[in-house]
Amino acid sequence: MSVTSEVRVRYAETDQMGVVYYSNYLVLFEIGRVELMRSLGMAYSQLEEAYGCILPVAEARCRYRASARYDDILQIETRPALVRKSMVKFAYKIWRKTSEGEERKLLAEGETTHVVCDKEMKMARLPEKYVTALKALITEE
Amino acid sequence: MSVTSEVRVRYAETDQMGVVYYSNYLVLFEIGRVELMRSLGMAYSQLEEAYGCILPVAEARCRYRASARYDDILQIETRPALVRKSMVKFAYKIWRKTSEGEERKLLAEGETTHVVCDKEMKMARLPEKYVTALKALITEE
Amino acid sequence: MSVTSEVRVRYAETDQMGVVYYSNYLVLFEIGRVELMRSLGMAYSQLEEAYGCILPVAEARCRYRASARYDDILQIETRPALVRKSMVKFAYKIWRKTSEGEERKLLAEGETTHVVCDKEMKMARLPEKYVTALKALITEE
Amino acid sequence: MSVTSEVRVRYAETDQMGVVYYSNYLVLFEIGRVELMRSLGMAYSQLEEAYGCILPVAEARCRYRASARYDDILQIETRPALVRKSMVKFAYKIWRKTSEGEERKLLAEGETTHVVCDKEMKMARLPEKYVTALKALITEE
Repeated sequence: MSVTSEVRVRYAETDQMGVVYYSNYLVLFEIGRVELMRSLGMAYSQLEEAYGCILPVAEARCRYRASARYDDILQIETRPALVRKSMVKFAYKIWRKTSEGEERKLLAEGETTHVVCDKEMKMARLPEKYVTALKALITEE
Repeated sequence: MSVTSEVRVRYAETDQMGVVYYSNYLVLFEIGRVELMRSLGMAYSQLEEAYGCILPVAEARCRYRASARYDDILQIETRPALVRKSMVKFAYKIWRKTSEGEERKLLAEGETTHVVCDKEMKMARLPEKYVTALKALITEE
Repeated sequence: MSVTSEVRVRYAETDQMGVVYYSNYLVLFEIGRVELMRSLGMAYSQLEEAYGCILPVAEARCRYRASARYDDILQIETRPALVRKSMVKFAYKIWRKTSEGEERKLLAEGETTHVVCDKEMKMARLPEKYVTALKALITEE
Repeated sequence: MSVTSEVRVRYAETDQMGVVYYSNYLVLFEIGRVELMRSLGMAYSQLEEAYGCILPVAEARCRYRASARYDDILQIETRPALVRKSMVKFAYKIWRKTSEGEERKLLAEGETTHVVCDKEMKMARLPEKYVTALKALITEE
């Protein structure tokens, strides 16, 4: 099961090729995983504040299929792809939303792998309720 | 007296108009004031670490004269415009560097006003040696 | 009369002070004026495509009152402040949205001045229907 | 054989974890490949202007080893990893420069794959002299 967020492309995100600059897709991925956590009733900001737990990225990967353009409405589809006590992997699909009746277009897909750390960047464990909620999403899929 | 830093325009900084996106000039201003501090032997990072002193921006202003483009070499000219115990103002000029013999072109100019704060964002005083060094630059001017 | 847009602060927009980096407020301003245009039924993208008309920024100014933080919901309030045939000025207020019952907090306010240009960056005139619609907003105020 | 570029981390590039935000490494990669091209006497801007040839990214990947911090001097080491007529792959290593005597630290490594396109985003061929020069670098390695 995945969670979908919508954002509109900002002028600031385009480059002189007239399309969204390639690093900005990783910002979209971040929006996606934050919304996925929020949809579970567990804001990422809370994870950081209440549990002193951060999720630095160990690896990021993006495959670009078609260009996002200024003012496009993008749908960011995020799902947990792997959940371990000290590691989480999310998978993303970025779609261009289209008018009713038309099929939406896949623009990019990717994955990010996160290690669970405390605020001193030492290996830590993801709080149990996060593990459970994320794993439930994978099972449902 | 002013300090000049050089940077090359990155693809990431352009927008679909084919020019540097307007908010990025404030990033250039930041590079300028950091280099000005460093030229005084007083890295901004040290101000933050050794004195627990930060300089949040209270006001920023930029007037855009001509467009910076991808791969341009920009010269950021920075000078302190006003120095008080709990307030500093910097003034900036951004130039496009040109081939020898040609006159460089003014692209933008602006100012930023900073209040001196401690890490809890309470009003603080700029360490005396910073005040002295910055004021010396204004006098020389 | 003003138009209000809502955005949530992204992790990418914070800096190591733990607050939104100062240049990002100009990106928020852009979101605000784009939404204001859209609310008039005249997308900025259409202005660029259908009329070959662009609105480069001649001057930008921002006064920072309080810090926006990660995950805050921001309200961007935008209104046209001045409309001439070849010049438009917008004024902005950025608020932090708060829980019901609480008063929202003003974080920043600013203005941007735009000159009307064609795609060759030559002075041009804003299409009449844009002038009329923007002026109507000022009168209502 | 690889080409090394140096940049200093900007405040704008940090996030509230106090480290460089993860998408910015892709901006560093871009700086690296642009400098690699320039070192061959073939500016990327020239490729775009003179040959109408662009190199959109088809895939990007980054593995994060250690955090880059504000004011760090980074070394971006870039080499062509694969060169085909309509496809180029670059490989990158990002190092933190250290004081003399100390060993520099590997912060990140990654790859980007580019398809060669004309300005209408149709498949094109990389000009022969680029192919030759890039292939020469691989052989030397």
